[in-house]
Amino acid sequence: MTLEPKVFLKTLFEAAVAAADPARCVPPNLPDPPKGRTLVVGAGKAAAAMAKAVEDHWTGPLEGLVVTRYGHTAPCRRIEVVEASHPVPDSAGREASSRILKMVGGLTADDLVLCLISGGGSALMAAPAAGLTLEDKRRVTSLLLRSGATIGEINCVRKHLSAIKGGRLAAACAPARVATLAISDVPGDDLSAIASGPTVPDPTSFGDALAVLESYGIDQPLEVVRHLQAGREETPKPGDPRFARIETKLIATPQQSLEAAARVAREAGIAPVILGDSIEGEAREVALMHAGIARQVARHGQPASAPAVLLSGGETTVTVRGEGRGGRNLEFLLALAVALDGAAGIHALACDTDGIDGTEDNAGAILGPGSLARARGLGLDARARLADNDGYSFFSRLDDLIVTGPTRTNVNDFRAILIEGDTAGISKS
Amino acid sequence: MTLEPKVFLKTLFEAAVAAADPARCVPPNLPDPPKGRTLVVGAGKAAAAMAKAVEDHWTGPLEGLVVTRYGHTAPCRRIEVVEASHPVPDSAGREASSRILKMVGGLTADDLVLCLISGGGSALMAAPAAGLTLEDKRRVTSLLLRSGATIGEINCVRKHLSAIKGGRLAAACAPARVATLAISDVPGDDLSAIASGPTVPDPTSFGDALAVLESYGIDQPLEVVRHLQAGREETPKPGDPRFARIETKLIATPQQSLEAAARVAREAGIAPVILGDSIEGEAREVALMHAGIARQVARHGQPASAPAVLLSGGETTVTVRGEGRGGRNLEFLLALAVALDGAAGIHALACDTDGIDGTEDNAGAILGPGSLARARGLGLDARARLADNDGYSFFSRLDDLIVTGPTRTNVNDFRAILIEGDTAGISKS
Repeated sequence: MTLEPKVFLKTLFEAAVAAADPARCVPPNLPDPPKGRTLVVGAGKAAAAMAKAVEDHWTGPLEGLVVTRYGHTAPCRRIEVVEASHPVPDSAGREASSRILKMVGGLTADDLVLCLISGGGSALMAAPAAGLTLEDKRRVTSLLLRSGATIGEINCVRKHLSAIKGGRLAAACAPARVATLAISDVPGDDLSAIASGPTVPDPTSFGDALAVLESYGIDQPLEVVRHLQAGREETPKPGDPRFARIETKLIATPQQSLEAAARVAREAGIAPVILGDSIEGEAREVALMHAGIARQVARHGQPASAPAVLLSGGETTVTVRGEGRGGRNLEFLLALAVALDGAAGIHALACDTDGIDGTEDNAGAILGPGSLARARGLGLDARARLADNDGYSFFSRLDDLIVTGPTRTNVNDFRAILIEGDTAGISKS
Repeated sequence: MTLEPKVFLKTLFEAAVAAADPARCVPPNLPDPPKGRTLVVGAGKAAAAMAKAVEDHWTGPLEGLVVTRYGHTAPCRRIEVVEASHPVPDSAGREASSRILKMVGGLTADDLVLCLISGGGSALMAAPAAGLTLEDKRRVTSLLLRSGATIGEINCVRKHLSAIKGGRLAAACAPARVATLAISDVPGDDLSAIASGPTVPDPTSFGDALAVLESYGIDQPLEVVRHLQAGREETPKPGDPRFARIETKLIATPQQSLEAAARVAREAGIAPVILGDSIEGEAREVALMHAGIARQVARHGQPASAPAVLLSGGETTVTVRGEGRGGRNLEFLLALAVALDGAAGIHALACDTDGIDGTEDNAGAILGPGSLARARGLGLDARARLADNDGYSFFSRLDDLIVTGPTRTNVNDFRAILIEGDTAGISKS
């Protein structure tokens, strides 16, 4: 079988996204219909597509409200879809969240709340606790992010400033039955981390949240500190009787998407090597190490003989020092281009599975052994573009952006590096 | 077979170092004796041990001089061993280098120069070109390192400021036969990069070196710029007839050492995964990605099923921001400890194969699932120690440093991460 490398890599990405497509993974996981009402709520980049998949396969009456990111909507008839801002929350999300909390109040034990959760839900379902504003939460989150606090510590604080996160949504649904369908975009598929776990009990306390602020010397905004000190309405804890009737299913994960891509590769005669479903780190450094492993495949046939494709998921970070444009996948790919320096027979793709890398209009981009030379021909200096965090200019000038539009799902980033062998069944581009 | 994880990891490291031991890899690679004199010269952390291996196996008369790092000497009787400073050159290295250049002058076509090259040789065999001082070279190197120049660009400049690098030593040996034995510590085992390639022709020119300085806006020291502009005595180029009688053998490489460790692992029933022999990047970021791959083994059995051991070589970098002590291997290991957060069944070792991590007295250290908890018990905060680049305090307080003393060889760093499986044939520590 002969496949053009770019086409091959795009096919892998499509397989990864398709594996997480709500139309495919929601229907087999729907709960039994209740005796009473069925209310669908939820938030995340996949929320609208998940709601549509429910509508298309649900037998019986249905109503509800889900929040998704601007542009990630899907045509629902019975479930209302609200679009809101991500990653910075806005009033659309705040108002939708407060309507969700009202809708789930007053249900009976005969009713079912179907909760559709996916990445991005934390910002989209923003409901500050009474007395707090979105701006208060934003400020403390931004201070925490710069403090070196772990994501676990940040989430502990956020759950204690919210009216909906850390299991509070599920608590508000009692005594109704709650069925949560979740699409994971977090390391270890930790359910309490996906959209900050609105239906997952929270073992942490107001005291823990205060201790986090204290240990990083954060005493602002004052309203936040006072709210934590007051310590009213603790998050529901594991063992809380209101959680007796909650069932949670993980219906799509980064790992499942990597496995789907691996199957496609294997069928094409290319050995897949899955390095990790939750690779983290500074994008340009993660790229350096991917380059090192790719060279090892090319030079020594390890950890697999070429033709092979390295696959990885997870979320890198970008410490912005420049003025350029582009998300973390383009930063990764540009750094990879510099590190590989045109190495023969190595091609790569890096995309966000949600279809939007950062805040641009592209999902990611693609890279070949000739990309650097083509860039030089256009007067583009890869190192200078990287120093300026300007992956977007680089790959758009090369016409190598991958533009999918919102995919309406989200299993985080997807990276694939193809190392062609001498005997590769794929032709050089 | 039951092996304690710490013992197992140390055994792998010992196998890696042993594979690069000059006593083992020099003898089978010795050239045929010449009709005339045999002169042994060389520089690097392995130079003394290589000289001793030559003495122990050479039949016939022998004389010469090699330069090694302070403390890396070995007892030679016929070859003089000079100890000098690394990584910052000193007058001992400079004087020895100029004696070497004098010794190889006036040889005949019947004579043989046996050149023993290993990592560190670049600083140890420092011979500034006429009119330049060590301080001139130091200043421009330090400016280049901070400029973002590539290692290739930096080496281009250095070769044009030296009387011995970039093939100049070999040119000085003509018309004698030259046999170079090299131990590699560089990515891709690039012979022109090991000790700056004293016996390898250099395709770059004075013009290239000047262009590098210009493109990074470096116009200091003035003597350096003037020397490059004057452009006297170009480095010997590929095809130079003086290189017709040079034979070079790579006698030990990072890859061979990784393979040796992999064999030991395989014999113990632990699947080895060699990720790369030249992994580069900021140590703490490289650690994050190693942690991600280790977790993938533990959670998903990829890229290998546990029990498995991830092996990697190469050289990480540390951007020093703190006041602490410790080399790049301890920085890597401390960041790995934080990233793994006590993950069950994961143990790691990171050491410099030369026996000296940075400028301390240890080769590296070892880490287990209980290390963080033990540290907390001692009042040690791993994150704070990492922020202060203080791996040495952390691991020395835990009594987990690995101290070998100088190994008298150098195939760069060695990292091994053991992921025990449920069915692992190794007991928990």
